[in-house]
Amino acid sequence: MTQAWWLNPCQSVDNNAVEQAAARQQQLTKPAGSLGRLETVAVQLAGLQGQVKPTLEQIWIAIFAGDHGVVAEGVSAFPQEVTGQMLLNFVSGGAAISVLARQLGAQLEVVDLGTVNPALNLPGVRHLNIGAGTANFVHGAAMSQAQGELALQAGRDSLLRAKAAGAQLFIGGEMGIGNTTAASALACALLDCPVAHLTGPGTGLNAAGVSHKAQVIERALALHAAQRGDALQTLFNLGGFEIAALVGAYLAAAQEGVAVLVDGFICTVAALVAVRLNPACREWLLFGHRGAEPGHRHVLETLQSEPLLELGLRLGEGSGAALAVPLLRLACDLHGQMATFAEAAVADRPA
Amino acid sequence: MTQAWWLNPCQSVDNNAVEQAAARQQQLTKPAGSLGRLETVAVQLAGLQGQVKPTLEQIWIAIFAGDHGVVAEGVSAFPQEVTGQMLLNFVSGGAAISVLARQLGAQLEVVDLGTVNPALNLPGVRHLNIGAGTANFVHGAAMSQAQGELALQAGRDSLLRAKAAGAQLFIGGEMGIGNTTAASALACALLDCPVAHLTGPGTGLNAAGVSHKAQVIERALALHAAQRGDALQTLFNLGGFEIAALVGAYLAAAQEGVAVLVDGFICTVAALVAVRLNPACREWLLFGHRGAEPGHRHVLETLQSEPLLELGLRLGEGSGAALAVPLLRLACDLHGQMATFAEAAVADRPA
Repeated sequence: MTQAWWLNPCQSVDNNAVEQAAARQQQLTKPAGSLGRLETVAVQLAGLQGQVKPTLEQIWIAIFAGDHGVVAEGVSAFPQEVTGQMLLNFVSGGAAISVLARQLGAQLEVVDLGTVNPALNLPGVRHLNIGAGTANFVHGAAMSQAQGELALQAGRDSLLRAKAAGAQLFIGGEMGIGNTTAASALACALLDCPVAHLTGPGTGLNAAGVSHKAQVIERALALHAAQRGDALQTLFNLGGFEIAALVGAYLAAAQEGVAVLVDGFICTVAALVAVRLNPACREWLLFGHRGAEPGHRHVLETLQSEPLLELGLRLGEGSGAALAVPLLRLACDLHGQMATFAEAAVADRPA
Repeated sequence: MTQAWWLNPCQSVDNNAVEQAAARQQQLTKPAGSLGRLETVAVQLAGLQGQVKPTLEQIWIAIFAGDHGVVAEGVSAFPQEVTGQMLLNFVSGGAAISVLARQLGAQLEVVDLGTVNPALNLPGVRHLNIGAGTANFVHGAAMSQAQGELALQAGRDSLLRAKAAGAQLFIGGEMGIGNTTAASALACALLDCPVAHLTGPGTGLNAAGVSHKAQVIERALALHAAQRGDALQTLFNLGGFEIAALVGAYLAAAQEGVAVLVDGFICTVAALVAVRLNPACREWLLFGHRGAEPGHRHVLETLQSEPLLELGLRLGEGSGAALAVPLLRLACDLHGQMATFAEAAVADRPA
């Protein structure tokens, strides 16, 4: 264990389980390949779980929340106090992800990395108070090295709790007014991509709002340009506490051997940071959906990922990943429970 | 009730429930529209069920099976006895749709309209023996008027059983070696579309096989060209027993006020026939997925439908529709259980 734990090796995929699962798929009573993506994800999960018939009974959903200093630039359609108000909604059961977690029988954990209201003390929320939101990154780094490392560790801690609870799949979600601005800035810096390609309406900006948001991101990119080659420092310069926590959780998942289902734009940018820091973590990441935020498609393509759903979602909270869970579960059920041609005495196609 | 029952009026959508459901969506604690397609389907189901908070506890899945005389022309990768073998697999629990129905808690009904083995007598299967498969439609009509009407009625009977059992959603599936050939021929005739656009590999033909299949369809279209303007006669000329049963089930669903979730290419062609016969039925049809069969996209566009999933499926059996059920259920759960801004004391965006 080095001090920079995020650089430690990731676990290997079980190629023997992959081969056996792929062979089983060929024997099931259906035309070869006719279950499309459900076949590939079942085989992939077999490799990640190290068993020919994977299962997804235990799901862990961690919502990471944090506020963003860049909101002072007027980049969000919603007021900043919503971050804290939504924390209460998450634990009260009224938020989208609360409903989804309940229906899926998933464990829901809510982690407040640091909002503008440090006095918040909500039963059921882990308040970490890393800072009263990040600093405004058009004037300096969003967070200090110490804050960034605390946020990474907070993600890792959540993943370790998930593993201890027997989770077979980890979903990270996020909440933070202003965090599409942070995510777009991060993605532009890491991908060296024009700001207009990766900047969108977030929770509901109009065209003028998106244009202003892009200008704010341009200023931030210019300020932090010298450190673009350093993914970790770029995360600390332009990210958010909740984004850093997601990065830490994804990296720890790959190191601990827990499959991850990545949610929308912000989570996918966190996945991009994780892959830049430690490329081997990529094998442990599945992608739930392609969302409505325009930059999401580009970041997904960079990661060569094929999300399961495309429903025009732009909510965050881990909701898009949660919505894909039943498909993964049914993929496992089909893989594990369908009869083979031999068992069912059904004629296969001539060789 | 006229003798041609399929022309009877369809039930109306409850526009009051639609309006109230749409208003509720605007009040839930999320940016307006951020749940994308899940919002529109929840509102649509509210209108179909006539209640502001729809639910989908009771699901009915009916698999209609039949054999196809056109298989004599060598249009399928699988031997024809597979139709009957799969009937046994459906009721034994080993087929994909059997696994899915079990996991969804759905009622699964298997209806054998007529296969090449009229002696089949499988416990749990309704054997109707309309014929020993259809006739080869390159030489004449696939079925007689009497056979066609029996098949339509068989679909209606299944829907009536579904309604009596309290079903809130009807899924029709199909099984029949050769039935993508029938579906492609039907769609070409009804849409006046080039055969190459709507003909694909089905269960797994190679390029030469697809080319041969297209030639067979060309011959059939030429033979039956004079009756192209008559959708019902075209169904009897080029369809299959199971396709006619799907048409009957969809029309009866709209007449009886039961929402339908349409499966893949063959089912979508049956939906096209139903809409041609009685256009008002269209409002009762939701579409589960866009499959891998190349013609599916075109027929879906003709029906102005937006399927929920796109996973490269090409199995049939109702499997793609069944896979979309959890999304519809979660859409209802989110719609019914999320807190409003007022309930959760969360600030909405400024007006």
